[in-house]
Order: sequence, then C-alpha cells, then structure tokens
Amino acid sequence: MKVIVIGATGTIGSAVVKLLAPKHEVIPVSRSAGDHRADITDKATVETVLAKIGQVDAIISAAGGAVFKPLSDLTDADFEKCLHDKLMGQVNVVRVGAQYIRPGGSITITSGILANEPMPGAAAISLVNAGLEGFARAAALELQSAKVRVNVVSPPWVTETLIKFKMDPAAGTPAADVAKAYARSVESDASGQVIDARRV
Amino acid sequence: MKVIVIGATGTIGSAVVKLLAPKHEVIPVSRSAGDHRADITDKATVETVLAKIGQVDAIISAAGGAVFKPLSDLTDADFEKCLHDKLMGQVNVVRVGAQYIRPGGSITITSGILANEPMPGAAAISLVNAGLEGFARAAALELQSAKVRVNVVSPPWVTETLIKFKMDPAAGTPAADVAKAYARSVESDASGQVIDARRV
Repeated sequence: MKVIVIGATGTIGSAVVKLLAPKHEVIPVSRSAGDHRADITDKATVETVLAKIGQVDAIISAAGGAVFKPLSDLTDADFEKCLHDKLMGQVNVVRVGAQYIRPGGSITITSGILANEPMPGAAAISLVNAGLEGFARAAALELQSAKVRVNVVSPPWVTETLIKFKMDPAAGTPAADVAKAYARSVESDASGQVIDARRV
Repeated sequence: MKVIVIGATGTIGSAVVKLLAPKHEVIPVSRSAGDHRADITDKATVETVLAKIGQVDAIISAAGGAVFKPLSDLTDADFEKCLHDKLMGQVNVVRVGAQYIRPGGSITITSGILANEPMPGAAAISLVNAGLEGFARAAALELQSAKVRVNVVSPPWVTETLIKFKMDPAAGTPAADVAKAYARSVESDASGQVIDARRV
C-alpha cells in the first residue's frame, strides 16, 4: 500500500513510519524536513502536497499541537491555537485527503486518551481530542459511499514524550507500540472507530 | 436556587425556564429579548450580563448554533461558525461563569446525541457536541476545588424542532422532557457528567 504519514518526524509519526516501511510504500510528510512538506495549520499546504503525491491507499496524521495549561490560565488565544492546530488541522486532512484515497483506503487521525480521561491542565486538549473523535465518527459515515474509511487513534501518554518532559516514563506506552494502532487502522477494514492504542 | 438560563427563549431553553420557575428563582438571558441580554458568540456580552446579575447557584446554557450540511458541502466558514458559536460560546460560558457560581453550584451546557450517534450531515455538529463533552469532563475536574460542578446535557432530537423542520415528530422527545435533564444537573450533586436527556 501507498501510505502518507503526516507528522512523520514526530515521536509517534516516526514510529509509525518505522513500523509501516518494511511492508508499505511510506511517504513521509513533515512541516520542516524531507521532500514533502505541509503544515496542517495551513490547509493550502496540505492541498498542495496531497495533489503532488496523488492517489494513495492511506493517509495518517500524527500531527497537531494543543495547549496544556490549567483552565484558569488558558487564554482566548490558547483556545484559538488548539482549535486551528490539532483540531481543524486534522479535520482538514480528512476533508482534503478524502479525494486522494483509493477505494477501501483510509484516513487515520490522532486524538488522545484525554478525550475521555481528563486530568488537570487538559481542558483545551480534551476538547480537541473529543471533538476529533466526534468528527471522525460522522465523517466515516459520510465517506462510506466513497469507500473511504476514517478512524482515530487515541494514544495514551507516550514513553518518549514523558521522558522528554522529565515525567515518570513508567506510566507511558512506547511509541513503537502506539504505532501498531495506526497499522491496524490502515490494514483492517475498520471505519468510524476510535482505536485505543493501549489495547492494540 | 438562583438559576440563570442562557438561551431562555429557545425551544429547549423556554422549556427549562418553565420547568424550573415554580421551584427556583430563574433569570432568563437571551440574545434578543428580556432584561438580560447576551450573545454567547460575543464573550464580552456574557461577561457583562453575568457581572450584572452576580452570584448564582446555577448557570444553564441552552444556546448556540451549528451547521447541518453534508461534509462535502461544509465550507471553512461553516466550520468557523460552529467553532465560535455553539462550541466556544458555551466553553466561554463555563470559563466566565465559574467565578459567579456559589459553592456546590453548577454550570450546565448543551451538546447533543450526534456527538456519539452521527448521521449524514452532522460532521460539524458531531465535532462540536463531542468537543463540548470532552471540555466539560476536564473543566469539571479542574473546577472541583472551587466547588463548581460542570455537566453537559445531551438532548436527542426535540419534538418541537422536528415539527419546525417538517420532519417526523414521532422520533423526537418533547422539550418538556428534555428540560428534566437540566433540572437533574442543577438539583443533584453530579459533576463531569454527560446527561443523556432520553434517560431522565
């Protein structure tokens, strides 16, 4: 299969590339590295890169930032950033990407367990992650007739990320394990699913 | 209890006012009618009206529009409207409202069953409703220390709305029944809950 990975140099994205590369033709897309560049916060760059690559079997997005901060510290600008980065950025990957998916192919975006299991500081991220899951369920239903599958991978805290932020890595799941959830979305016939990456 | 109802002249809001008025001091807030006016898409108007009313036991929001349209027809502007109307409008009711809630009091916002049970045309609304539920779960957790409860009522299709849109009213729940879910949020000690208005 021909598989685009957006956010290919990130912690999760690079693990996804590594897992899929032996079996599939993986095309990494990144904001700042490689031949194919796109910034999901700028829809036009997504349109350009996908048009250049053409038809594929799968598009994976492991891209998008959001703000982790106590509710009382979150500013209007923080919410705007979240809405237009991880949330609408990935919604736009689905909206733009759908026309480049071969029949039976898939688009997989990324939410996170904070959607359903919040913690202090997660209000904006929980909003974004839950919103992505609601959107994906509905988009999957509408894209059924075009034979385009849509799923969301919900990663837990990733070990590598915990280490980066000097948090306890024992609570995390290695990115290599999280990557398996993306492989399941691409290689199965699932659609409209939220795939909990702890259970793959 | 002193209870503010934002969106008090809407289909659900007016049913909530009617249900609560015999037992509580209800203060209706509306975009276009009555003594207290606020438009949730304009955070400053919410700040002004809540400051004028002062401390209360509960704030209910049954306000906010979103766009029902096939995914392929939804424009960037449609998504922006959804994000800044029903979604951020109600997020801002929580952010601003929290400081006006007496200990043990509550803020109740409105999502809808399309969050989890999508239908064609609902992609943007499903995003908004699910996002509100994710946000409310996280906000409830953070506002626990301030003794402010946060819940979301998830209404099904309302009979009166179905009649208005010339759809089959048999599939709907009367607004008077949906209103009971808001009463439960206000009168119980629930927090962080999504209250399915079909099951109250």
